[in-house]
Amino acid sequence: MRASIIIPTDKIESVDANLEEFSKGYTSLSQEHRRDLLLVLAKGYDVNRNRVRELVQQYLNLEFPHDSEGNVPDDEQSGGGVRDEAFLASCYRMERNLRIALKPMYGDFFERLNAYPGGLKILAVLRADLLTVMENETMPSLRALESYLKEKLITWLSPAALHLHQITWDDPASLLEKIVVYEAVHPIRSLQDLRRRLSIGRRCFGYFHPAIPGEPLIFIEVALLKAVAKTIQEVLWDDPPFPENEATCALFYSISSTQAGLTGINLGKFLIKRVIELVRRDMPNIMVFATLSPIPGYMQWLLSKLASQLKFAEVETEDTTNSSGVGNSSTFKENLLLLEEEEKICESGKRLTDGKSGIEVLYKLLSSTNSEWSKSDHLISALKPPLIRLCARYLLKEKKRGKALDPVANFHLQNGAIVERINWMADPSEKGIRQSAGIMVNYVYRLEQIEENAQSYFSIGHIGASSDIHR
Amino acid sequence: MRASIIIPTDKIESVDANLEEFSKGYTSLSQEHRRDLLLVLAKGYDVNRNRVRELVQQYLNLEFPHDSEGNVPDDEQSGGGVRDEAFLASCYRMERNLRIALKPMYGDFFERLNAYPGGLKILAVLRADLLTVMENETMPSLRALESYLKEKLITWLSPAALHLHQITWDDPASLLEKIVVYEAVHPIRSLQDLRRRLSIGRRCFGYFHPAIPGEPLIFIEVALLKAVAKTIQEVLWDDPPFPENEATCALFYSISSTQAGLTGINLGKFLIKRVIELVRRDMPNIMVFATLSPIPGYMQWLLSKLASQLKFAEVETEDTTNSSGVGNSSTFKENLLLLEEEEKICESGKRLTDGKSGIEVLYKLLSSTNSEWSKSDHLISALKPPLIRLCARYLLKEKKRGKALDPVANFHLQNGAIVERINWMADPSEKGIRQSAGIMVNYVYRLEQIEENAQSYFSIGHIGASSDIHR
Repeated sequence: MRASIIIPTDKIESVDANLEEFSKGYTSLSQEHRRDLLLVLAKGYDVNRNRVRELVQQYLNLEFPHDSEGNVPDDEQSGGGVRDEAFLASCYRMERNLRIALKPMYGDFFERLNAYPGGLKILAVLRADLLTVMENETMPSLRALESYLKEKLITWLSPAALHLHQITWDDPASLLEKIVVYEAVHPIRSLQDLRRRLSIGRRCFGYFHPAIPGEPLIFIEVALLKAVAKTIQEVLWDDPPFPENEATCALFYSISSTQAGLTGINLGKFLIKRVIELVRRDMPNIMVFATLSPIPGYMQWLLSKLASQLKFAEVETEDTTNSSGVGNSSTFKENLLLLEEEEKICESGKRLTDGKSGIEVLYKLLSSTNSEWSKSDHLISALKPPLIRLCARYLLKEKKRGKALDPVANFHLQNGAIVERINWMADPSEKGIRQSAGIMVNYVYRLEQIEENAQSYFSIGHIGASSDIHR
Repeated sequence: MRASIIIPTDKIESVDANLEEFSKGYTSLSQEHRRDLLLVLAKGYDVNRNRVRELVQQYLNLEFPHDSEGNVPDDEQSGGGVRDEAFLASCYRMERNLRIALKPMYGDFFERLNAYPGGLKILAVLRADLLTVMENETMPSLRALESYLKEKLITWLSPAALHLHQITWDDPASLLEKIVVYEAVHPIRSLQDLRRRLSIGRRCFGYFHPAIPGEPLIFIEVALLKAVAKTIQEVLWDDPPFPENEATCALFYSISSTQAGLTGINLGKFLIKRVIELVRRDMPNIMVFATLSPIPGYMQWLLSKLASQLKFAEVETEDTTNSSGVGNSSTFKENLLLLEEEEKICESGKRLTDGKSGIEVLYKLLSSTNSEWSKSDHLISALKPPLIRLCARYLLKEKKRGKALDPVANFHLQNGAIVERINWMADPSEKGIRQSAGIMVNYVYRLEQIEENAQSYFSIGHIGASSDIHR
């Protein structure tokens, strides 16, 4: 079924032929056969549970010296000297054996693949396939395989092992082609566009790994400006460049990963840090490090919020009609819109849609497929105040497990940035309107506060923001 | 005592300042204070044994489904479906927790250091210091620390993360300086000598890691020749070069590691393999890949062998005198020398030394500090046959834990080479005479047999050799 692919787990590292064969064999498999092979790997090359149980039993049989509280004393000099030394030696030996036993057999295989020249790329492909399979199947053994592989990849992709390279117009076309393909934030529309992003006043840096040559694992695009840009047009349009030494701001306007199999492995954090160091060293005039970032989750969040309010309103109406008296749904009801906003929306929305309330009109306007509202000045001016206000709330207050709900916000906040400014109609592209009503946000990296911010976000989920944002 | 160095183990990776401080602080410590700090690390940042015991206990409390033989069934589909899935999910969770608990606290610290730009170098320094401390102290906790760090370094120094670079005369002087300093086999005597090793008919390749810039971790020197060299002079002397396309043999004549802290981490194996691939691709005329290698342990082994034979002879004499009859020492007695060799040695040795037997004369000749014998043609011709014969025995038969006793032999054999030829007076330098009576050996890498050789050496300790060597 799964062709005749052998999974090499023997320890003799010289047998590279098997690894080469595996790599070739695997990449030529269909998605379905890859799934089968991943299942074989997850189940047939798992931890040897019987061995673990045996060692665990032995570990408990070790005679632990106890102190008065029943704890094991920490210091090997505290106890009886020689006897303790012998005891500790057994502990270390047993713990080492346990560590080895707890390594699944596929762990050896992964290590061998990683040591093999093309292996890291194959490991990333394996993980990408695993993530795809897991969209439909969530067997515990698959989850364990994926989480083990992810941990290993994090170790192997230590940022210190990565090479930072400034990508320029002089780089091979085969590399530049990858930039075009993988640019995930603001698609590159032409060779002209690409050239602009690599020439005067612009920078592009990528992290490369020796085992995945010719393409960056992640890259970031930077614009050198006189002030923090409010719209993406200022960055992408082909304004005549000014001398770089007049720039005082480095604006990160795009960051893209290239390997689906490295999802969840945060290399961007290190990349931004390295780039800031580099730019500071080369261009001491640059004082401000900021981003102009999308807010990918805003519209999705807002629409579901509006929808649930509509639902509550409906239930309430019914409750009043039926006089059943159960109407406690009102406790979940929020005033998403201010009174004056509601009025303006209802009035301006008339021409395009109808609705019983401002919420309903807003919901219909925002969820219409062609975003008609964004073509009417009247509607734009009616929607602007509530959309900006709610966006600030979304960025600063909405959380999931103590972290910002928006993934891009979470990324920059954990790196130590703060939310600086919300920009109306900063990205009027179709994608921009759909994602975030055209709003973009500036995050700012204040060098002297980066660590402090990151710590307070990490420990108590505090989201730093400028006083403007708080209003 | 240990200045005020903080060992940062917190998980917030943004706090690089502490790591920088640690790195600077550590390198400025005296050897004694480094020792103290390593002890603190080994003992105070150890595995949390109480936590491990707790988890181990919990693991045993899991209700394992047993098959008729008392083993845990391997396949999660074999049993009752949903129940087994839930059981397996707990297993995976517990095993993951155990894996985490078995990681010593210094494990987190090492990981953080490794992710930090200059960290890998510091980790290598830490290990070098540890190895030094352990020459005098062998506390179990220190041994555990060292073995843990070694394992981690092996993972992080995956050959796929290393960059192969051909070192040439065009490289920065700061790099070439390192080559001169670290060349461990045949010291570089002059700028002229260095230039010769990097110019026509010669190659030098190094493995570099991004986190240790400007110096190779290991480098190898190669001579392109018309035949496998029998003496090191053929390689090092400044003969007029011939066109490289006339070369049919690539001779590895020196391989040197630069980081004492990476002792025991075999990068040379991968380096040789990569260099062979590279040379084959670039120079298809090269058919033979061989080494001209020192035999660093030969004299040491032979002298101790001779000394113990002398001891036995002494005891035997006493036994005979005392007639105590315990004299079973003769069972350990060997005939190291053939009769004719013994005669010749005794006769030729007269002028320089005296002794009751050939063994004693040989021992005195070889152990004399200025190696007078190597200046007398007479003695050289008397010593040549036994020294070559015993050298073959040393290389092919003498083992430690199933592996060749000589470290260089072990290195090439495990890479898949075979012992090809023993060369008399191949290195008449003072060091060469002292180490191996001036003998050098050619190992040959036959491409089509490399894997097979490595496997049979690895599994049964078989040492491959040419028919000439076997005589």
